[in-house]
Amino acid sequence: MLILIAPDSFKSSATAAEAAIALAAGAHRVLPDADVALYPMADGGEGTIAALTTSGAVRVAEVAVTDAIGRPRTARYGMDSVGTAIIEVAEASGLPHVAGHLAPLTASTWGTGLVIADALAHGAREILLCLGGSATTDGGAGILRALGARALGANGEVDDGGAALAHIGQIDLAGLLPAARLARWRLACDVDNPLTGENGAAAVFGPQKGAGPADVAKLDAALGHWARLLNRDVGPLDEASPGVGAAGGTPAALIAAFDAELVPGARLVADAIGLTARIPEADLLITGEGSFDSQSLDGKVVGTLAQLASGAGVPVLVVAGAAKAGRETAARAGIVGARSIADGPRALAELMAKPAPLIEAAAADMLATFAAGLAAQGPELGRPGL
Amino acid sequence: MLILIAPDSFKSSATAAEAAIALAAGAHRVLPDADVALYPMADGGEGTIAALTTSGAVRVAEVAVTDAIGRPRTARYGMDSVGTAIIEVAEASGLPHVAGHLAPLTASTWGTGLVIADALAHGAREILLCLGGSATTDGGAGILRALGARALGANGEVDDGGAALAHIGQIDLAGLLPAARLARWRLACDVDNPLTGENGAAAVFGPQKGAGPADVAKLDAALGHWARLLNRDVGPLDEASPGVGAAGGTPAALIAAFDAELVPGARLVADAIGLTARIPEADLLITGEGSFDSQSLDGKVVGTLAQLASGAGVPVLVVAGAAKAGRETAARAGIVGARSIADGPRALAELMAKPAPLIEAAAADMLATFAAGLAAQGPELGRPGL
Repeated sequence: MLILIAPDSFKSSATAAEAAIALAAGAHRVLPDADVALYPMADGGEGTIAALTTSGAVRVAEVAVTDAIGRPRTARYGMDSVGTAIIEVAEASGLPHVAGHLAPLTASTWGTGLVIADALAHGAREILLCLGGSATTDGGAGILRALGARALGANGEVDDGGAALAHIGQIDLAGLLPAARLARWRLACDVDNPLTGENGAAAVFGPQKGAGPADVAKLDAALGHWARLLNRDVGPLDEASPGVGAAGGTPAALIAAFDAELVPGARLVADAIGLTARIPEADLLITGEGSFDSQSLDGKVVGTLAQLASGAGVPVLVVAGAAKAGRETAARAGIVGARSIADGPRALAELMAKPAPLIEAAAADMLATFAAGLAAQGPELGRPGL
Repeated sequence: MLILIAPDSFKSSATAAEAAIALAAGAHRVLPDADVALYPMADGGEGTIAALTTSGAVRVAEVAVTDAIGRPRTARYGMDSVGTAIIEVAEASGLPHVAGHLAPLTASTWGTGLVIADALAHGAREILLCLGGSATTDGGAGILRALGARALGANGEVDDGGAALAHIGQIDLAGLLPAARLARWRLACDVDNPLTGENGAAAVFGPQKGAGPADVAKLDAALGHWARLLNRDVGPLDEASPGVGAAGGTPAALIAAFDAELVPGARLVADAIGLTARIPEADLLITGEGSFDSQSLDGKVVGTLAQLASGAGVPVLVVAGAAKAGRETAARAGIVGARSIADGPRALAELMAKPAPLIEAAAADMLATFAAGLAAQGPELGRPGL
């Protein structure tokens, strides 16, 4: 019997690797003879480098750059043996690094651009940029400028950041790194927001980056202006296209300049770590995440794996900090069990403080129930409704 | 496929009947073609009349009596067609009725004695007295006196209650109701405490009835004196025998006077409602309770049913407010899944306020997992460790 263990992280409570180990321990307690294979997952946002390096074929580099508000910071990125650089926007330009110093109008992806430049200088032929977790709303202008483009206004180069996009009159690509043009660009993305408007980067993600209502309006207008300039000076861009609003609109610049492809992050990771190929031979897949709800099924790790597994006839169990999607929703996704790690009344802080034993216990209990079903004779079962 | 649904109550949050309906609804959502039979359970304490009357063969009577501190109160009891009276000590002499007015030294089972007298007057040939939940520590003296016995001290009849037992010099049975002597007495009990000592009625249950350390010492000594008098004046009694300390020592008087038999309450209820006989033909048994912990397996509803079911090879699922017994403990009892109704971080008050949808959801999810195991092919399963 082969059990695949492929959780996302439990937010800031447990990394995907920690969650996978706990789930595997629970599985082993119940089915000591089963083969248990661990595939810690990520959705193309934070944690993706860690997920991909678990597969062993990726080495990690460090580079001195700047964070979203211009302070020195060391960022990590991965490079595999065929020249694919795996870079997370959150590493350099992430929100957690600037907690308490949010600068929604001026935060920039410049630091991420420096990471990409370093990867290109070290021979990267493909940039796999993991979106998500950014502190920025600059439409990717920082990255484009760090790679050699210039954003010119009435008095020369305009300032960095989202608000200043409104003052740009022309984008000059003369200095753009040739390697950036030659590279294949893929952007791992787990949201489908357009660049602008009520579902756009500023309106939906601006507030969590510190933008008040007036800031949101200013950033939204600036991103719209930026999109028009990109179309005129750089290359075609549909600002209404799903996903262009990820990571503060980062895809905008990269689609226009490099014809970057937006790809669902979780599927990309599952492919890259060999999980997708393994699913057809599995008897069960156990995944998990911090909060399992109806959104989990829209391109997140759990939903992506449920789709892959149910397509192959492999039942899926979900262990989560909170599990509120409901049986019917879960059943439609091929999920045959989804439960919280809560073993009774518990405060959020309690669940987050020491999740591993609770994750292990929940996995063991669910697997015992599944195994009991396996062991029972079920000819009179009838057709399950869910 | 036959699924038996047999929960205890979820403490004050859901009655056994309410819990059974919620569990059945969850089962039906997942396996609409399965036969689902409801057997709301009780452990011989509070709720036992309700559990037994669900079977339909018991009618309920009401009688005006007194509560543990002498105030007027209406108590219910059941009577079946062959003259078995089902009486709960908690109905007349229960702790909840005197909340805020605890009187550990003077609380009396007199009111329960009046209920029994009424049942005998209406033809009861067997008294099935459900212990548990009493506010008293009077060694059953109140019952014995309500049935006609007299407790005499230096100045005539002594006062009611546990403390006054110390002043009794002689027990006079001349006025005891003949019907009480002729009846068969069974005492449904789910604890194994002796009458006196560090595990006795006063030491273990006295504090929750309002007894401070000095009160406990006084009551323990008084119960010891009462046991010696019972042995001398009434009939043989081993005060160290398991269960004699239930309900404030109520069995002491009834064993000495009527050779009452202590029986495990949950097993008695399971037999009486026909559940025991149904188990061998079932494919699955779902039970539940407020808190599933290691104590649940010591004669409580869940432990009793798990023992009956596992002996018949029927897997058992447990849905509980809190489920902290641990997989290994559950597995040893034949329980193949035990989970909390908590679907994430939740306060106790939240779980208790509206438990039915959470009970239903937990049951549906567990059953989906079990059914998925049934549906899967499991030849390579190996032997489950738990």
